[in-house]
Amino acid sequence: MSSLGYVRANCSRFLTELCDFLALPSLSGQPNHAGDVRSCASWLVNHLRGIGLKRVQAIAVGHHPLVYAEWRCLPDKPTVLIYGHYDVQPADPLHAWCTPPFQPTVRNGNLYGRGASDDKGQLFCHIKALEAYLRTSGQLPVNVICLFEGEEEIGSPNLQPWLVRNRARLPVDVAVISDTRFLAPGRPAIIYGLRGGLGLELTVYGPRRDVHSGSFGGAIYNPIQALCEMLAQLHDQQGRIVIAGFYDQVRTWSAAQRVHLRRTGPPSSQILSDAGITQGWGEQGYTAYERTTIRPALTVNGIQGGYQGAGGKGIIPAQASAKVSFRLVPDQDPEVVERLVRAHLARITPPTVRSRVQIYQKSRSVLLDPHHPAMQAAARAYLRGFGVAPVFLRSGGSIPIVNTLQNVLGIPTVLMGFALPDDGMHGPNEKFSLAHFYRGIATSIYFLAGLGKLEQGFAGLSGFNHRSKVPNRKFS
Amino acid sequence: MSSLGYVRANCSRFLTELCDFLALPSLSGQPNHAGDVRSCASWLVNHLRGIGLKRVQAIAVGHHPLVYAEWRCLPDKPTVLIYGHYDVQPADPLHAWCTPPFQPTVRNGNLYGRGASDDKGQLFCHIKALEAYLRTSGQLPVNVICLFEGEEEIGSPNLQPWLVRNRARLPVDVAVISDTRFLAPGRPAIIYGLRGGLGLELTVYGPRRDVHSGSFGGAIYNPIQALCEMLAQLHDQQGRIVIAGFYDQVRTWSAAQRVHLRRTGPPSSQILSDAGITQGWGEQGYTAYERTTIRPALTVNGIQGGYQGAGGKGIIPAQASAKVSFRLVPDQDPEVVERLVRAHLARITPPTVRSRVQIYQKSRSVLLDPHHPAMQAAARAYLRGFGVAPVFLRSGGSIPIVNTLQNVLGIPTVLMGFALPDDGMHGPNEKFSLAHFYRGIATSIYFLAGLGKLEQGFAGLSGFNHRSKVPNRKFS
Repeated sequence: MSSLGYVRANCSRFLTELCDFLALPSLSGQPNHAGDVRSCASWLVNHLRGIGLKRVQAIAVGHHPLVYAEWRCLPDKPTVLIYGHYDVQPADPLHAWCTPPFQPTVRNGNLYGRGASDDKGQLFCHIKALEAYLRTSGQLPVNVICLFEGEEEIGSPNLQPWLVRNRARLPVDVAVISDTRFLAPGRPAIIYGLRGGLGLELTVYGPRRDVHSGSFGGAIYNPIQALCEMLAQLHDQQGRIVIAGFYDQVRTWSAAQRVHLRRTGPPSSQILSDAGITQGWGEQGYTAYERTTIRPALTVNGIQGGYQGAGGKGIIPAQASAKVSFRLVPDQDPEVVERLVRAHLARITPPTVRSRVQIYQKSRSVLLDPHHPAMQAAARAYLRGFGVAPVFLRSGGSIPIVNTLQNVLGIPTVLMGFALPDDGMHGPNEKFSLAHFYRGIATSIYFLAGLGKLEQGFAGLSGFNHRSKVPNRKFS
Repeated sequence: MSSLGYVRANCSRFLTELCDFLALPSLSGQPNHAGDVRSCASWLVNHLRGIGLKRVQAIAVGHHPLVYAEWRCLPDKPTVLIYGHYDVQPADPLHAWCTPPFQPTVRNGNLYGRGASDDKGQLFCHIKALEAYLRTSGQLPVNVICLFEGEEEIGSPNLQPWLVRNRARLPVDVAVISDTRFLAPGRPAIIYGLRGGLGLELTVYGPRRDVHSGSFGGAIYNPIQALCEMLAQLHDQQGRIVIAGFYDQVRTWSAAQRVHLRRTGPPSSQILSDAGITQGWGEQGYTAYERTTIRPALTVNGIQGGYQGAGGKGIIPAQASAKVSFRLVPDQDPEVVERLVRAHLARITPPTVRSRVQIYQKSRSVLLDPHHPAMQAAARAYLRGFGVAPVFLRSGGSIPIVNTLQNVLGIPTVLMGFALPDDGMHGPNEKFSLAHFYRGIATSIYFLAGLGKLEQGFAGLSGFNHRSKVPNRKFS
């Protein structure tokens, strides 16, 4: 039986297994779910052992385990690193879900559940492709190392240090990550540009305790008011971020490059309709696609303070806080931006309150080469798997691991996304198309086969040759 | 035994009873506590029957029952309406309480628990004063009608309509309410001015659902940002509210009146230290006391939107909302202010989002006459109960019932507060001084005795004479 025939014969079992995987609430950002993240890692370890991968293990790296597996039996072939993450975003607001986020449900050809597309469903495509090869031919067309992280949604705080410590034990030539989206239904996309990020929590402190707004209203500064006034001082009327020096490192693109971008990227109308709105907003002089890819952005992801229940409560609260995240572009340095942001927030904090900034996430933007042979192999795999060649696109999101793989292991990453724009990644009713699940498995099968034929010109592009000097098989 | 001797002999039982009363979580603003509010009303009904009051009943007026009781056996004496409320504010933030809010606990001469001073503890002073009279002499020095409300903390939506319907059945001459505070320890205060209020929830709507801030950040307007920018446009640099026409109806006070106010009111330093802050804020040209009494104020009591858990979440949320309350002064009309506020908020809503305003509370400011005989009787009662005469003060808070009693029943209200400034009304670790509890009972005893001597000059000041034409004893 061919590996594709195996997929067809086993597709309903694959779906059942994915449902089991999604049912595990591996919420890495919520300390009370640490046990669930561990259980999910164990489930994954057992699954990877079951399909025949080697040295499968859950490695304690910090908060949540990193799941490792490998199959390296072809000394003359390149090695691909398959990265994915089995942790998920919080599921709130729960009331907005049609079916519970951790009770995976199939409706209208889609599988609904937290993590369906981000990223359990997508990484599972590769796992099932590996299974199809190993169960039919007993081997893979390339060497494979799998790294499935449990801390992606909390900013991968421990992955880079682990990669640095173990880089000599990771002789890889290229990475593939499926954690991105199609441009539209029927239009696959390979991301070659990603924005970086800087995430912080801004807290404003007022009175020592919540006080009565009748007794004190009008005479003491309200931390909510101060926070709102500070957040209102971050953009100007033209949609630009007003932090001094913020744009100094932003790369300028030529007119020709911008024309190319506009031609390949989605029109503003599609971006707005994907978000369910009719009227755009943002930096003057740029399209929506440019605003979300080559231009930086600042978003308040959350805010809270004072009374939030039913009815009213007459208080001035002791504090209020907001989650503020920046999306950074070439050539912004997150360290520099952090200094500028801290200085700006300190400067605009009213003297009658105190403020505190806590950074929770920081990463640089990424640019990859669409002409790299592995990128071209991925394009051919899409053409066979989905019947259509992909567009090469920039994304407004951040996948810090891509940056890390480039910096630490010296390898490029193929961002081979299988999700759809309306899959609701990070939102309620997250889903994954079943057709994309099965075609994603096929595309991974074609991609691995394509990589297996690349060994000639491929080695020169990376650290392919350092495979011989792996000194120590145990990770540190 | 004198009524005061009875109080001394029974004070520890009184405390136990108050603890039972406080343990009932009568949270009127939280629908899931509706049963608890009802239980608390039943407890109060049983208690009032037990001490010998007549026609005791829980009257269904809307969300939560109004508890009624009377003792009217002296046709030639005036009738005092004792108003209080047995519902309480939400207890959050729960983590800030040293002992659970509904497990009343005595520490250092104070009773801690939600409602200890606002208002269960204070209204209980009057109940125990009535008990002391009835159990020792078998009668009261004046006629009494008790109205204990269960909807005060949600803005008393049903009390005014009920009073209007039943005004002919409520032949009262004066009201007493103990729901206010001393100026400082050892400095009792009678409030003769209260600010009015207008409470609203402002909600801003953006994308149809929460969307990924990587994919859309920079290209669509964020409802949190819009909300913050709107809230930041409500005050100018001089601390004034910038809503057009907002100050048009605000009464101007003469220089002499302001000098008197400053002399009788607390210094700014005390108001700031009561709030636990060092630096004041507010409308230029006014003291802290003026800012909280004769000047209106706008407070954001709460705000929420997007992700509020641990770590970060890369979203632009679908909506964000804030609880905004105005404190109004003479001669501001809440209806006029509502129109101005709605127009202002509509005008400053960015075109890229939608906003909605829901009013949850509305009341006019109140001014009472410090020279009224009942006010003077209260002053004498304080002198005997606490050993010191009270100051006549304005308060920045709102007690809409005072306004209603004036408008509907045509009677003045004596605001005879027994709480201390640091009692934490509306905040965590709310408390009531045990010394104030017992002295409050004594002061109520003296006050009722004083009112009993007032019948001569008193009747002319109010609707005293309409007592004879009570047509129907059943409330509608």
